[in-house]
Amino acid sequence: MFLADCQARLAFDLLANTWNAVVLWSLRHGPRRPADLRVQIGGISQKVLTETLRRLEFNGLVHRRAYAEAPPRVEYELTDLGRSLVEPIGALGAWAFEHAEEVMAAQDRAGA
Amino acid sequence: MFLADCQARLAFDLLANTWNAVVLWSLRHGPRRPADLRVQIGGISQKVLTETLRRLEFNGLVHRRAYAEAPPRVEYELTDLGRSLVEPIGALGAWAFEHAEEVMAAQDRAGA
Repeated sequence: MFLADCQARLAFDLLANTWNAVVLWSLRHGPRRPADLRVQIGGISQKVLTETLRRLEFNGLVHRRAYAEAPPRVEYELTDLGRSLVEPIGALGAWAFEHAEEVMAAQDRAGA
Repeated sequence: MFLADCQARLAFDLLANTWNAVVLWSLRHGPRRPADLRVQIGGISQKVLTETLRRLEFNGLVHRRAYAEAPPRVEYELTDLGRSLVEPIGALGAWAFEHAEEVMAAQDRAGA
């Protein structure tokens, strides 16, 4: 069953950390400096952003570019692989936007 | 930014547990008994399946139906809300199927 085997599960494990999806989504319009990403995302600490960017880089989803300037400038951008994940992430985000209230209502009923 | 707010994050938190996606996906063709789900999914323990089904029920994504028979029979099926999540889950699973090798290759290069 395609979802139980490790290949398909890899995508869910990647998105098991919600910040991975948030940061990938925030890079969909082009390269960004970490400071700009923090402002754009809001609610993410420097530490978590750095860890997330490193994890995304490790998985080949993001590319880090350092400019030999003074002071040094660093930008992150989606790789082709990272860009290919933006659409499924968007579909999931759109689902949440549309159905979050129904889930929360179910949680309230179940919790009541 | 729509992903940083709690509503959109709810979908990712739901799928942060990979078994949620696997069990929802396994119910896409109709009601199933837990024993049949275990065979279909493969690699999931009775304990994890029971916890997952309960969690999905709590979130309004799955409905439990008990039949007054001897011995008692129980089936689980997707609610409309649960069914609406099957497509984004399928999109993510398809992405993994197509790109898992590229991710694993990037992990090898990064790990080398």
